[in-house]
Amino acid sequence: MGLARIFGLKAPTGLEPGEPKSTRRLVALSRDLMAKSQGISGALAAEVLEAYRSLDQPGRIAFYEALIRDFSPSPDDVSLAAEAYQREPSAQNLLRLQQVVEPPRQELFRRLNMAAGGTGALIEMRRQVLLETETHPDLEPIAADLCHLLASWFNSGFLTLERIDWRSPAAVLEKLIAYEAVHQIQGWNDLRRRLEADRRCYAFFHSALPGEPLIFIEVALTRGMSTLVQPLLDPNAPVADPASADSAIFYSITNCQQGLRGVPFGSSLIKQVVEDIGKSLPRIRTYATLSPIPGFRKWLRQELAAPESIVNDQETRGAEASLEGTGAGANNAEDSERGEEARQRLLSACAYYLLRVKQGEEPRDSVGRFHWKNGARLERINWMADMSSAAMKQSGGMMANYVYDLAELQRNHEAYIRSGTVAASGRVERLARQVLKPKSTGWISRALHVLM
Amino acid sequence: MGLARIFGLKAPTGLEPGEPKSTRRLVALSRDLMAKSQGISGALAAEVLEAYRSLDQPGRIAFYEALIRDFSPSPDDVSLAAEAYQREPSAQNLLRLQQVVEPPRQELFRRLNMAAGGTGALIEMRRQVLLETETHPDLEPIAADLCHLLASWFNSGFLTLERIDWRSPAAVLEKLIAYEAVHQIQGWNDLRRRLEADRRCYAFFHSALPGEPLIFIEVALTRGMSTLVQPLLDPNAPVADPASADSAIFYSITNCQQGLRGVPFGSSLIKQVVEDIGKSLPRIRTYATLSPIPGFRKWLRQELAAPESIVNDQETRGAEASLEGTGAGANNAEDSERGEEARQRLLSACAYYLLRVKQGEEPRDSVGRFHWKNGARLERINWMADMSSAAMKQSGGMMANYVYDLAELQRNHEAYIRSGTVAASGRVERLARQVLKPKSTGWISRALHVLM
Amino acid sequence: MGLARIFGLKAPTGLEPGEPKSTRRLVALSRDLMAKSQGISGALAAEVLEAYRSLDQPGRIAFYEALIRDFSPSPDDVSLAAEAYQREPSAQNLLRLQQVVEPPRQELFRRLNMAAGGTGALIEMRRQVLLETETHPDLEPIAADLCHLLASWFNSGFLTLERIDWRSPAAVLEKLIAYEAVHQIQGWNDLRRRLEADRRCYAFFHSALPGEPLIFIEVALTRGMSTLVQPLLDPNAPVADPASADSAIFYSITNCQQGLRGVPFGSSLIKQVVEDIGKSLPRIRTYATLSPIPGFRKWLRQELAAPESIVNDQETRGAEASLEGTGAGANNAEDSERGEEARQRLLSACAYYLLRVKQGEEPRDSVGRFHWKNGARLERINWMADMSSAAMKQSGGMMANYVYDLAELQRNHEAYIRSGTVAASGRVERLARQVLKPKSTGWISRALHVLM
Amino acid sequence: MGLARIFGLKAPTGLEPGEPKSTRRLVALSRDLMAKSQGISGALAAEVLEAYRSLDQPGRIAFYEALIRDFSPSPDDVSLAAEAYQREPSAQNLLRLQQVVEPPRQELFRRLNMAAGGTGALIEMRRQVLLETETHPDLEPIAADLCHLLASWFNSGFLTLERIDWRSPAAVLEKLIAYEAVHQIQGWNDLRRRLEADRRCYAFFHSALPGEPLIFIEVALTRGMSTLVQPLLDPNAPVADPASADSAIFYSITNCQQGLRGVPFGSSLIKQVVEDIGKSLPRIRTYATLSPIPGFRKWLRQELAAPESIVNDQETRGAEASLEGTGAGANNAEDSERGEEARQRLLSACAYYLLRVKQGEEPRDSVGRFHWKNGARLERINWMADMSSAAMKQSGGMMANYVYDLAELQRNHEAYIRSGTVAASGRVERLARQVLKPKSTGWISRALHVLM
Repeated sequence: MGLARIFGLKAPTGLEPGEPKSTRRLVALSRDLMAKSQGISGALAAEVLEAYRSLDQPGRIAFYEALIRDFSPSPDDVSLAAEAYQREPSAQNLLRLQQVVEPPRQELFRRLNMAAGGTGALIEMRRQVLLETETHPDLEPIAADLCHLLASWFNSGFLTLERIDWRSPAAVLEKLIAYEAVHQIQGWNDLRRRLEADRRCYAFFHSALPGEPLIFIEVALTRGMSTLVQPLLDPNAPVADPASADSAIFYSITNCQQGLRGVPFGSSLIKQVVEDIGKSLPRIRTYATLSPIPGFRKWLRQELAAPESIVNDQETRGAEASLEGTGAGANNAEDSERGEEARQRLLSACAYYLLRVKQGEEPRDSVGRFHWKNGARLERINWMADMSSAAMKQSGGMMANYVYDLAELQRNHEAYIRSGTVAASGRVERLARQVLKPKSTGWISRALHVLM
Repeated sequence: MGLARIFGLKAPTGLEPGEPKSTRRLVALSRDLMAKSQGISGALAAEVLEAYRSLDQPGRIAFYEALIRDFSPSPDDVSLAAEAYQREPSAQNLLRLQQVVEPPRQELFRRLNMAAGGTGALIEMRRQVLLETETHPDLEPIAADLCHLLASWFNSGFLTLERIDWRSPAAVLEKLIAYEAVHQIQGWNDLRRRLEADRRCYAFFHSALPGEPLIFIEVALTRGMSTLVQPLLDPNAPVADPASADSAIFYSITNCQQGLRGVPFGSSLIKQVVEDIGKSLPRIRTYATLSPIPGFRKWLRQELAAPESIVNDQETRGAEASLEGTGAGANNAEDSERGEEARQRLLSACAYYLLRVKQGEEPRDSVGRFHWKNGARLERINWMADMSSAAMKQSGGMMANYVYDLAELQRNHEAYIRSGTVAASGRVERLARQVLKPKSTGWISRALHVLM
Repeated sequence: MGLARIFGLKAPTGLEPGEPKSTRRLVALSRDLMAKSQGISGALAAEVLEAYRSLDQPGRIAFYEALIRDFSPSPDDVSLAAEAYQREPSAQNLLRLQQVVEPPRQELFRRLNMAAGGTGALIEMRRQVLLETETHPDLEPIAADLCHLLASWFNSGFLTLERIDWRSPAAVLEKLIAYEAVHQIQGWNDLRRRLEADRRCYAFFHSALPGEPLIFIEVALTRGMSTLVQPLLDPNAPVADPASADSAIFYSITNCQQGLRGVPFGSSLIKQVVEDIGKSLPRIRTYATLSPIPGFRKWLRQELAAPESIVNDQETRGAEASLEGTGAGANNAEDSERGEEARQRLLSACAYYLLRVKQGEEPRDSVGRFHWKNGARLERINWMADMSSAAMKQSGGMMANYVYDLAELQRNHEAYIRSGTVAASGRVERLARQVLKPKSTGWISRALHVLM
Repeated sequence: MGLARIFGLKAPTGLEPGEPKSTRRLVALSRDLMAKSQGISGALAAEVLEAYRSLDQPGRIAFYEALIRDFSPSPDDVSLAAEAYQREPSAQNLLRLQQVVEPPRQELFRRLNMAAGGTGALIEMRRQVLLETETHPDLEPIAADLCHLLASWFNSGFLTLERIDWRSPAAVLEKLIAYEAVHQIQGWNDLRRRLEADRRCYAFFHSALPGEPLIFIEVALTRGMSTLVQPLLDPNAPVADPASADSAIFYSITNCQQGLRGVPFGSSLIKQVVEDIGKSLPRIRTYATLSPIPGFRKWLRQELAAPESIVNDQETRGAEASLEGTGAGANNAEDSERGEEARQRLLSACAYYLLRVKQGEEPRDSVGRFHWKNGARLERINWMADMSSAAMKQSGGMMANYVYDLAELQRNHEAYIRSGTVAASGRVERLARQVLKPKSTGWISRALHVLM
């Protein structure tokens, strides 16, 4: 009856030169799985996944190549269906065209998902494929097919928000320690402090990956909008009373599953967290991030190498140079004026970088891009906010507060989507404008005025 | 930036004559939802669904028509992409073609799923669309798009098998009473009997539909393979010790969600139930159904109206006629011989119907089709197995036992898929062959021999 | 080593005449259980309970008699310890006296509790003992010992309040149907109405009796304090929006476990329910019962038979007589004046009965006693509030509203405990005073004034 | 009405000299609590506990003294009730005597238990009282009263056995780290190793103390009965396949709540764990401990100081002395013969100590006493089984295997209870007998024979 044919699977090619025996067996098993009718395939799917897991890296590449070679749409079928549709653009012909353009490997992946642990195995497969695409760009369609499926399966309607605290399973908590990338967790004591009464931690979970956080966010409950990150990270900081807090500071957000790269969770997570905190702590007035500015210094150095750049003047070059010194320059009294000027130059340049520098139609800074797309507003740029060496290298220690204000989120988002407009407070706008003004000796005092 | 364009949404048409205002508002909201970037859409999605729910039936049809008119692929875009692909069948061009052939309403549905309760709302929408397709076949693509999404989301890897018993929530149990279609449940006492120690009930659930069974199966634990269904359904039957049972009889399987019609659950459910029962009750040797034969009498009457039919002889006509009498004929002694002959004729005709009569390449009987595809074996046809008037009308009261034998399930399934072969016991095969034999007076005795 | 001796168990008596063999075996097993050291006894305890369960009623009585005969404190030991204490009232001698006065059967019961299901078995044993004490008052010490243990184990600190709704297990819900004694539940439809959005139902559970409600309360969320119970009980009454309610009416409270008779749950239950409702429905202003007045008519008939009784006058006799008629008299216009007078007489007599009539130092009405002890206030007596024949017989259809006002609960409770003072509203006080006034023709108009 | 009087509370004494004001307030609150009727007391009980928590140590002692002074039985009442009972030993008079000998503070404790967290507060109170009894033996009755209540409330019928693994809440796991006393847990990595696939950990919990283990046991699944404890404790030991294990070794059991000292959990825990492991791992044949021998060297040194002791000979003195050397003597070849003789001497002396040395009627070794009472059998004494300095000091590094054999547990327990008989293997018996034999040069070879 040829059910297999329905999915447009190509006839097996003969022996591929150099194809490992284990890969050959896996391909044959995959064909068997495709030949089944629905519903019978759990055990066989598990066998296919087991065969996949046992492959070494060359074996995996050979398998991916087979997925491209044998589990892609048939060009002839596509051409025929396309012609039929062009002759008569009927619903029938469109349906046929839709069917033949879908790669059979998508159906293969759907069937592999029926094995116990199948979803996790497919996420791991995508992770491995993504690693290979750097050197094998021809494998990208596989990663794209998996992304298409996973994005549909991990639709935010299927995710559950869970609060994580010290009563959470250790098996979940150790994953936070392992995954946290923004501000590394230094063991269990550090983690415990991050889960105390004046902190909140939330993650998204999916029913098919029990105990596996997909993304998590760390929040500090504070009085006033935090300007410095180290106090938030200090494992020995005293625990504050959450009832006295008026601000919730999102100081870290971490995607856990590399195999789900490109499936968007963060925006939905932040909004649900804002709602959840608002319910239990009605006194919180401000929801804001304390975010890195990952691309600032890289951009600045590029500009300083370009003679015609608007920011390329002597003072800014000096300010940039001072960052290489003893922890952001000016530590003693005699340097303080020079330090203050450097500080103003760098804050202005950073505001300009964030608000004006684009990559295509969107802002160049990846973190800014994410928050603006969500509808947030850039509220403040904080000097010496993160003294870690990584942050010094990236942004000269500066960090940004993006405010999530439910009342304007929707409006900001739409303005951003429609016209690329980025929302920012007046003082950040003014900082950015400093770059464009004729440089006079008076600008520092004006800038100071702005900042106070 | 035109994110909306990415999804190929057509420009809004002007005022459609006769389109209700409420539908127009819903379509506008749907366009808004499509215009958002990912992740911002939960609240708006909820608003769209609310607007949909408030429509009356004409309003819904107008909305479906808008989905066909405005949320379908653009023929021009499809043609262009198809031509590009035909010129150069590159991965790039294929991807573009895949994108333009996907109807934008699929993305609309994915976004609607992000609302709380979105999945259930889409299932309900599909149920309503399916009702309309009978009179509006042009709406079928909508049902097909929804089916495509739902089949992916309700992949058996995402379902959880749960045992249902008297400790289950009343809100779940009342749904069993409402949904059970094969052997109606006559209220809470009847239900309670079906959940006693010598019964098992299992259902599939999905995390997005808490408390909502998707499909459920009822099982009786018995000594010997049941031949009659009424004893299994008797609310006053004494409760047997499950430890003494050697057979698990699947006597009813019910799909609960009309909006998930065509998404296959049954096969996977039966296999998981066989495994689960096997673990807790290792003495069970036989797993079999006691199944209706829904199409037998309809087919038989058609045959008896066709002069050339192989089963159209005087005896079978008499036997068929006897079914209309006082509860399947022969109740008193003088009729017993005639009754026995009628019984043999009908059993043979029924075996012939099940094993030999096709619809396309598959068996005509829908229940048989389902079990054979799963890899089951038709073991026995039972006389007077269901005395309900519905069963008398459908099959003259006959029922079939399909055996699920894990050792041969895979083999049977493959033979069925490859060549349409249906697995059956020797005695059913012999019954079917009686139809083909020259009718002599001796056949009854031979048939009796077979049946003993 | 004689551990058994530590518990003061008497040497086995010889054959008791007429003691059944099964009882003798049970007593021997019980002695074995007492002879064990701690911790080894789970299996043996289960065996003892099984032996107990298999006894018939005479066997049980023989066992109880053995518990009195052989598992009581030894009078000689008690006397010796008492003398020692009287000679020297040291902590040591007091401890010894405490030990010897404790009946060894208490230790037996504690050990039986170690069997799986032991707690439930002991509750059932107490239920059975209580039944027998009516004819065998000598068995009362057994019931008292069990009460002592159970009251300690069912300390309200060990109970959990759970809300019961339609998502609760059917196995729990059917117990509500079985146990509800105040206003019987007429099957599953009736129950379902009592669990709708404008109703609340709560129960206490104990971890040793999973799925077994100890006591439950039914609450209606209404606008205004309910005066009639039938509308609350109507299974077809439309469901109101709970957000619009300003009153929570406790219309039924049921103890489920006869074996826990005398262990007080009700007061703690009501207070916890008031708190829980207050949290989720802050608009509720009034928490009140709609309670039966079980002893009114019995008392009234006694009074009317006593010539000197203060309530024994012609009008009240007529009013009482009218209750026997066609549903509380006055149905047609001409009877209305007489009816009104009867109504006033009976309301006054009822108020007098509730507020003034005592049994010992406490009010005679058992329901009133319970609520006043809790600190509630009698707010109103409602005419024709319960038209059921049972209520007509008990109280002429009248019901009482007792208000639970958190602000005065403590004060009322203390006044009641200290001096027997019962809290009541001004209008009920005035009603009660009518009884004491010289009867003039004018009293009806005054009474009417009071009620308006 | 004087409900307070029912509980026999004494009239308040006047100002106690030196009683802190805070204690005086607490005593007054406690009297208030006693004066309430049942069911009203949750909030007041919480207030009393709060007042107790705020006391410093002198304040607590003053409170305990008030509990002795004012909340004890009245000697006069006891004398009167005792006389009445002696005159007429009726059930009535016994009941009265039982009531007056119960200290009113027991009722106080029962009422304090009604506060949220009350049970935990009472356990903490007992822990603090126990600390004071060392210097204030007059406070012992308070600890005894609390013990009486807690033993009843923590009856093993109210405990739930839970398996603890890496999915358990971190808040529970950190308690294991804190409480483990036998073989300290060196942080989270060590803990994680103890929860791997070839380990089991179980604890008892009580519903009133959520997340609070009462006692826990650590088990290693091994091939063969472990003779050495260090390999079991090595955080870097490879994880074995539990399916290949034939032995379950209980290597640590820890009581967590000092306030529950004297409430027996261990025996019941071990037996339930044996059952639970048996269900999931049917290949386990041997259940045994690897236990410390805490009192051996202390006893041995006492014996070696007593000239007439049976073990006091030159060889044993030398052997004992060798334990002080470089890690249990004989490390180089020339010492090996002397070392072997020392080993035999010490093993024999240890076997003699365990089997023959008594304290009262029971074995002197506390660990042995516990396991023998449970019905275990001393199977083997292991040389150099625990090389930690603590174990070297206690037992010269020797450890004992006690075997839990379900088939003989009951028999051994009864023999122990009846006649103090301790169950032991033949080889341990023979070791113990070596002590009694005339010492000849030949005994080492015989001993070696025994051990092989």
